[in-house]
This record gives sequence, C-alpha cells and structure tokens, in this order.
Amino acid sequence: MPSQNSTILSARDLQFMLFEWLDVESLGARPRFADHDRETYEALLELCEQLATEHFAPHYRKSDTEEPSFDGEKVTLIPEIGEALQQFARADLLGLTLDAEHGGHQLPQTVAAACMAWFTAANIGTAAYSFLTVANAGLLMAHGTPEQVERYAAPMLEGRFFGTMTLSEPHAGSSLGDVLTRAVPADDGTYRIFGNKMWISGGDHEMGENIVHLVLAKLPDAPAGTRGISLFIVPKHLVGEDGSIGERNDVTLAGINHKLGSRGTVNTAPVFGSGAYTPGGAAGAVGYLVGEPNKGLSYMFHMMNAARLGVGMSATTTAYTAYLKSLAYARERPQGRRLTGGDPSAPQVPIIEHADVRRMLLAQKSYVEGALALNLYCSRLLDLQASAVDDDERVEASRLLDVLTPIAKSWPSQWGQESNSLAIQVLGGAGYTRDHDLEAHWRDQRLNPIHEGTHGIQALDLLGRKVLGGGGAALMALAARIGETVERATALGGEPAEHAAALKATVDRLGEVTMVLAGLGDADRTMANATVYLEAAGHVVVAWMWLEQLVAVGEQRSDFHDGKRAAARYFFRWELPKVAPMLDLLASADTTTLEMRADWF
Amino acid sequence: MPSQNSTILSARDLQFMLFEWLDVESLGARPRFADHDRETYEALLELCEQLATEHFAPHYRKSDTEEPSFDGEKVTLIPEIGEALQQFARADLLGLTLDAEHGGHQLPQTVAAACMAWFTAANIGTAAYSFLTVANAGLLMAHGTPEQVERYAAPMLEGRFFGTMTLSEPHAGSSLGDVLTRAVPADDGTYRIFGNKMWISGGDHEMGENIVHLVLAKLPDAPAGTRGISLFIVPKHLVGEDGSIGERNDVTLAGINHKLGSRGTVNTAPVFGSGAYTPGGAAGAVGYLVGEPNKGLSYMFHMMNAARLGVGMSATTTAYTAYLKSLAYARERPQGRRLTGGDPSAPQVPIIEHADVRRMLLAQKSYVEGALALNLYCSRLLDLQASAVDDDERVEASRLLDVLTPIAKSWPSQWGQESNSLAIQVLGGAGYTRDHDLEAHWRDQRLNPIHEGTHGIQALDLLGRKVLGGGGAALMALAARIGETVERATALGGEPAEHAAALKATVDRLGEVTMVLAGLGDADRTMANATVYLEAAGHVVVAWMWLEQLVAVGEQRSDFHDGKRAAARYFFRWELPKVAPMLDLLASADTTTLEMRADWF
Repeated sequence: MPSQNSTILSARDLQFMLFEWLDVESLGARPRFADHDRETYEALLELCEQLATEHFAPHYRKSDTEEPSFDGEKVTLIPEIGEALQQFARADLLGLTLDAEHGGHQLPQTVAAACMAWFTAANIGTAAYSFLTVANAGLLMAHGTPEQVERYAAPMLEGRFFGTMTLSEPHAGSSLGDVLTRAVPADDGTYRIFGNKMWISGGDHEMGENIVHLVLAKLPDAPAGTRGISLFIVPKHLVGEDGSIGERNDVTLAGINHKLGSRGTVNTAPVFGSGAYTPGGAAGAVGYLVGEPNKGLSYMFHMMNAARLGVGMSATTTAYTAYLKSLAYARERPQGRRLTGGDPSAPQVPIIEHADVRRMLLAQKSYVEGALALNLYCSRLLDLQASAVDDDERVEASRLLDVLTPIAKSWPSQWGQESNSLAIQVLGGAGYTRDHDLEAHWRDQRLNPIHEGTHGIQALDLLGRKVLGGGGAALMALAARIGETVERATALGGEPAEHAAALKATVDRLGEVTMVLAGLGDADRTMANATVYLEAAGHVVVAWMWLEQLVAVGEQRSDFHDGKRAAARYFFRWELPKVAPMLDLLASADTTTLEMRADWF
Repeated sequence: MPSQNSTILSARDLQFMLFEWLDVESLGARPRFADHDRETYEALLELCEQLATEHFAPHYRKSDTEEPSFDGEKVTLIPEIGEALQQFARADLLGLTLDAEHGGHQLPQTVAAACMAWFTAANIGTAAYSFLTVANAGLLMAHGTPEQVERYAAPMLEGRFFGTMTLSEPHAGSSLGDVLTRAVPADDGTYRIFGNKMWISGGDHEMGENIVHLVLAKLPDAPAGTRGISLFIVPKHLVGEDGSIGERNDVTLAGINHKLGSRGTVNTAPVFGSGAYTPGGAAGAVGYLVGEPNKGLSYMFHMMNAARLGVGMSATTTAYTAYLKSLAYARERPQGRRLTGGDPSAPQVPIIEHADVRRMLLAQKSYVEGALALNLYCSRLLDLQASAVDDDERVEASRLLDVLTPIAKSWPSQWGQESNSLAIQVLGGAGYTRDHDLEAHWRDQRLNPIHEGTHGIQALDLLGRKVLGGGGAALMALAARIGETVERATALGGEPAEHAAALKATVDRLGEVTMVLAGLGDADRTMANATVYLEAAGHVVVAWMWLEQLVAVGEQRSDFHDGKRAAARYFFRWELPKVAPMLDLLASADTTTLEMRADWF
C-alpha cells in the first residue's frame, strides 16, 4: 500500500495516473516491456518513495544553507549528497529505461518518470547529479562508439563516474552557435580542447572516481554558427583501455556560481586547457570526438529533449511537494473564524476552512496534478515511440512529442512558480521564513524557466519549429488527439461534456489563430508574440490533461475522485477562460512589442 | 537637472508624474501647503536621490548576506544601516508631511512619497526602520496626549528613538481579535503588560537611544474579539519627565525570524513581562494607554492604512529598480542575432533587440509606472483630504481612498512580483545568481502580499467593507472619477479614445458584476471569490492610471513621451483584456472553491 501522508509526493495520485489513467500495465504486451508487470512497478515505486524519504529529503535544507564551496582546487559538497547518490546507484536506479543490451532495465519511461519524481520532489539539488549522469550516458549509447560506451557510459550507470552537459560559455548561453571553445586534432586521433565554459552543473566535485564532460567545441575551419559545432568527451581523469583511472586531464574551474536556489547542485565555470595540467606532456585537455564532426548540436538535442522533459517534471515535483506541505499546514494551523456566524469567543478554525485558503490549495492542486499528468503523458509517448508496433504509431508519437516538449518544459516552470508562491501565501508570515521549506522550493523553481532553453526559446521552438515548421502536422496530430478525448468526455454527459465543449471551442480557435499567424507573410510579426502562443497552447494542453483525468475518473466516487472532479472544474472555470484574451491578442498580430524602440525605455 | 541614468529610480518619470500629470504645484494654492513651491520640491527630490544613492544603495547586498543576528541579549545589524538612518534623520526627512505645530514640514504627501521612493528603491531593508518610526510617531500625534507626543513622538522625529508596530502574536496574525497579551492596571495609572508577540519588524537593535513599541493588548474583562483591544506605548527604556532615558523596561526577545528576503530589517518575537527586568521593582513591562480603552484597533487602522499605502509603494519601487537594472543589462549584453536576416558570423546584438526581451521590458515598464502612478495618485488624495476646501472634497477623497487603498497595497505587490520575475528572466542564468541584485529584489518583493494584511485580507476589505459595506458610494465615486478621465481621453481621439472606450466598457461591466454579487443574498457566496474581485478591480484601476498618464502626455513628442504611449498601449492591449474572464467568473458567482471539501484534497 502506498503511504497516504507523505508531503513529498502523493503515492495515490501516481497510482491513479499510471494504472487508472495511463494504463501502463498494457505496455507489458509490447516486446520491449514484456519483462515487467504491475507488481514490479509498484515495488519500484515504493522503493523510490522510501529512498527519497530516507536519503534525499532529510538534507534538503542543509544543502541549501551549506552550499557547495570551491577553494581554488576542489569543490566541497556536504557528505549527505554523495551518500544519497550512492544509495541511488546501489539500488540500481541509474539505468531504468536504458536498453537491456547496455545493462539497462528497459522499463517504461512512464514508470521511471514516476519513480524519479520522488527524488526531484524530495531534493532536486541532489537528484540533479544523477539525472545529468543518466542523460550523458544515454547520449553516448545513442551516438558513441562501443568503446566509448564501455569506457565512459558503463561506469556512469554503475554510479562510479558522473556526467555533465558542457554547452554554454560566458558570452554564449542561448546562442550556442557562438561557442568559441576550440578542438585541435592531435596526431593520435584525439583532440586537444581549449576554452571557457559557463553555467555547468556538476562541473566538478569529489564524488565518484571521474567526471565525464560532454563538451561542445569547434574544429579548425568549422562553418560559422550552429552548423560548425562538434561534441567531445572530455573526462576529468583520463581512462585507460582497461578502464583504469589515469592521468589528470586539463579541466579546471575558473570558479563556481552562487545561485538563488537549487544550491545543492554545484554550478561551475570550467576551463579546458588552462595549462594547469599537461596530459601526455602536451597542452590542452584531451578530448574524444563523439559521432561525426559538426553534428554536435544535433546529438546534444537528443539529450536536450529528454532534459527539457526532465526540467518540466522537476518543476512539477518542486510545486507538488510545496502544495502538499502547504496543505498539511492548512489542516493544522488554527486562525480566524468562518466568515458568517463566527462567535469571537469560539475557538479558531483550521485555515483550510477559509474559502480563500481553499482557493489557493485548489489552484495548486489543479496546477501540479495537471502538470504531472502532462509530464507522464509525454513519458508514455516516449514509450510508444520506443516500442511502436508500426510506423504510424511511431510518427504520431514523435509529432505529439515535438509539439508537447516545449509545453511540458515551460508550463510546469511557469505555473509551478505561481503554485509555489501560493504555497508560501497559505502559510502567511511563516511561509516567508526559512523555518519552512516553502521559500526554498520557490527559489529552486525560479531556475526552471531559465535552464535548458529559456521560456522565450521554448516559445520560438514551439511556434517557429514545431507548429509552423512542420507544415502544421504536429499541431493537427495534437488536435486530433484532443478531439478523441473530447468525444469520450462528451459521451459521459454532465460536467465532463460541458468541459469538453469548452475545450473544443478553444482548440478550434487556437487552430484559426495559428492560420492567421502562418499567413502573415512577415516572420518577425509572426514570431513577435510567440511567448503568448506558448502560454495559450500550454493552458489548452493542460485543460486537455484534466479532461483526460476526468474521463478516467468516470463515475467513481471517493474523496480522491471527488477531489479530481473539483480540481478539473477549477481548471475549466478559472484557468481555461484565461486563454481567450491571449488568442485574441495573437489573432490581432499585435505589434506593440515589435514597434517598441530601445530609446523609448 | 535630475540624473537620467540612475538604476534606482527614474527621476524623469517622477518629474512627469508630479509636475506634468498630478500638478503638485497647484497644491501651493492651499493654505496647508502654501510655504512650498516647485523649487523646494525639486531640491528635496535631488537630495533624496543623492542620499539614497550614496548611503542606502551601497549596502543593499551586504545587508542581505550579513543579516541581523541575535546572541540572546542583543541584536546586531551591520553598521551601514545605522549610519544611513543617521544621514536620513540629519537631513530632516522624518517629518516631511507632519503638521508644522508638531515640528513637521507639512509637505504634500505626493512629494514626500516620491522622495521616500528613492530610499525604498535603493534599500527597502534599511528604509523600513524610518518608515515604521514615522508611522508610529504619526499615530501618537493623532491619538496620544500632548505629553506622549513630547516624550515619545518628538524624539522619533529627531532620529533619536525608533518605533515599532507590535500587533501580531504567534497564534494571532491575520486574526488580531485573538491577541492574548494582557494589560494589567497599576496603581499609578500605568499598566503592566504581559505577552508574546511575533513578526515585529525593528523589534530590537542598538541604533538610537530607545525603541517605542506600540502594543495591542487586552485589559481585564475586555470584550472578546476585535472590540476588546487597547493600544499601549511600551518603551524599551523608560523615559523620565525631562525626557531622560531611565530604567530598562521588561521587553526582551524570544528570538528573531530568518526570512526569505528584506533581511536588513530585523524581524523579532518580543516578550513583554518575561521577568528579565523588573522596572520600578514590579513584574511586567510598563505600558501607557493611548486614547481610550478598547479602541486600540481603530487607532492602529489609522496607521495601518498609511502602512498599506506604504507597502504598495515599496512593492512598486522594488519592482521599479529591478526593471531599471534589467534594462541596463539588456542594453549592454550581446547575445544572438535578429530573427530574420541574421548572418551567423556577424557580431551578436544587444538583447534589447529581441522582441521577447522588449516584451519583458515593456511589461515591466507598464507594471511599475502604472503602479507608481496609482501610489502617487493615492498620495494626492491624502493631500486633498488634508487640505480640503470643503466637505464635498474631503468626502470624495475619503471615499476614493477607501476603495483604492486595498488596491494600491495589493496590485503592486502582485504585479511587482511578476515584474521582478521578468527582470530576472531578462538576465537569464546571470539573473539566477547572487552576482546581480535581481534575485534579491524578487525575494524582498515576496513579503508584500503577506505583511500589513495579506492579499486575501485586502480582498475581503475591498469587496466586503469598502465596496458593499458602504452601500456602493465608494465604488460610485471611483466610477465617476474614471468617467471624467474617459471623457478627456475620448476628446483626444485616436488611441487614447480607443483605450477610453475599452476602459469604460470594463468599468460598466465591473459595476454590473458588483450588483450581481450584492444581490446574491448569501454572504459566503458573495465573498467566496473576493480575491478575483480585488485583482479585476486592480487591473481596471491601473488601466485608468495609464489613461490618466496618456491624457497628460497629450500631443507631446519625445522618447520619454513615446515610451509612455507604448507602455499604455501595452497595458490596454495585453493586460486589460485579462479582466474579462475574471468578471465572467464573478458574474457566475462560481462556487468551486466554496464547495471544495477539506477531505477531497
């Protein structure tokens, strides 16, 4: 039995999503997932809840107050981080979804995402190290040579090595085409890397035996911009053919960044080829090309899409745990009396009795459960993609993922922030103190609209590349899927049918607005309000997720199911209507921001 | 000449608001303000800019990282705070608006608010000490005896004493009727105070000679609830008849609170009558009744209304300075290229060239300048109230202030947070580090929807007390005022007339919705969505402020005036339309939150 009173996540909600709604059991009929059943899934979920509760949650506050430090040589983390990650590795959780041939468990991503949600909810700063490592290993498995997989990816899956994504530079964050890090070919087929990187999470620490950096750099005479970027493995310590740890590579730190939140994850400014070390007696950090020259960004995007979905999930769980913590407080804290009929000498009531507190809790519930549904839905699409029975299924899953990925990254990041803010507000003054976790979750959350592609970058990706770029196929696939849900909800009658009609009208209008934007014949004007498009589409998609959940709830009656109905109603009555003025604005192809001049500010 | 490049505030915008829009010069025709003219005002504004720049801004970051500490005996602040406040007192800025008979300067509140804006923008944590002190002194002048004014208020205006508002208790924050602190009459006409307080800003420190606490407490046999609360002066050190500092009173601290932001302002949990001291040889802290017994809350509300307007202004300036800092960054930071026609080998452009960055800057501009206009408009109403030529003018100003005060507190607190978040977003990863002030301003801002009455409390105040409580007179006064602006804007034609029509339609609809809520005959249902009412009314009011500014701009052409036009356009096209779904929700008297049950969460 899942515990019913964790303030990390709701085991009951995960159970609903996986088994009552997304029917992950049915994935067992597919060859890729044939080895697993519901019993495995539930045991794994319980294990993750237990590990997250016992090894990740307890040092959440400590890793915020005692943040990583750098003495010019070494990065020091509190020991609890390394210990928790060891427990994580020992439980064999690093390769849950990877192919069995590479030592993975070939578990459905949907289940794995639910498992990992326990860790990001409990302690995102600590969990981030393992996610970066898994993402790094996954990229090597997809694009590296068998030797690279064996030498670098395998030890990462064993928890002996850690991994990073080393993309940004001080002058090149969103604009990766401008990276200046150079890769000079050496005589032995390796490369020597020189350059300064920035914003690199997990860029140095003393956990594990080694750190494997995946580094974007330019070969001599590479084309300008994004078409001239290659990807290199640059380990902190060179690795021998037999897997032994060898000489120190020339990777050092210029310093570490001091952040608003997510402090447990050290964020660094690495330098490659500073001259501090001379591996093999020569200058530069030794690097190994991954795949073909000049294709580095496309490999990285493979990892980036997964990372973006991961950021969305972390945003969701950061808001989810804060919701549960504010809910627990609201049930306990007495303050004030009911608005009507309150006798001033009667005892105070728990604040959950106040309509405005219920509003703040219900809003949070609608945000976090809607976002979690979206994250898990995307995971299920990954599962369909990985186990597709035919090309049609694979193509449809890919199209849906195309259009949903920027939304699944951005929507939880944006509304998770609002949700985290409401969690603070429920506690009032207490929420503003560091005696409670709420303020820390709120600070952690602020990172999510920034990293792995800012909110504005996601908007350009959604409207420019995913919606308009593909000739509308992805959006049409989405509309068709939403249409199916609308049909099922309409058949139920009553409130689901009412919500279905509202959703259908909004989706139709989104389609019309998209046609207007596509037909403007002026790319600047089409893209000027891309962020509004992202946000409007996000609300539509999450409304759809609520309708999906409502269909799964059906006629079932219980406190849990009634709560789902109430949160769905909240989303349809309070949130979906916000889309109308956004779509009107888009339909007008408003040029206010485009016409604003720098001198007028 | 005001400086044009401060990142604290815009001197040019203050000049526009005071002289081109609100015409503060005309106040000089009123006897109360006859001693001042534009030259005085401008000299004072320049002085405040200079003091804020030289003495308040430089330790902004330091007072965040080296927050107040408490060793069980004393509270230690960084010395810069006391030094800045000495400069402030020495410049004779504590009594700007107070009556000349009490040693004040009888300056218009509008000018004083603009002056004080420099200090809250530069360093809210330090400025807060002086504002608490001025508010305390102002209350004593309104309700204290001449002796109390001389003994306690006068030294506060000289900068020798500091003041606090000591209301909340650990179990009584929003519900002040539940305070338990007791006041026991002594034989000599004084009282002995016993009780624990909570969330008291400036509750102890070593600056100045004394701290004057204004404490809510209950007399023996006082009625239950808010009708049984009295107000007492409780000095940290007793004050002799000749003004000499005497014995230590029994006011100690149980501890201090560690906050998310606004860290420079120490926040304390004072204990009255702990037994640590026995002034005059007896138990309890010595207190002096202010005014009549059981009227303490009404006196406190006199101060609270000013404090709420003050919180609104601090919220505005916290967002304003962040806007200017993000603007300065956006002008300097190169990243990426224009969307169309970008040659990847061309140099990167400053990010202000990107449409989405301009959107984020323009949104901030529309929020902070709209909020500042509202704050200063309220100040001008206070000036009209204080210098009214007849009863009609006084009554109208009071009605407008009634309805505008909760909005002027809440709207800048809510949208200031969004604005501060956009400022971080403009900087991307850099905005997430503590190398820039943006994250600190964002943390500071989070306090504003909590203190001096939470967002939800303001909503109950607006809809319950101010709009419905007064039979609608206040809302009608507001609608009439807005109608006048609409008329003037309509006469201008063009875009102002277009915006005026949109505003008029929304105000009319707000009136209709108010009638629906008033006619429900079910107080719980009427008040269930009060927060939505507050937020809708807030957007209407700020749209009106933008129309007011647009009328003041008239036909003038300059970068500054064109910027005002663009920000007004932004507010009318992007923001005002958000009100429609809110009003629809209110008109439906939606019961979603009311019907939600605690067990369903």
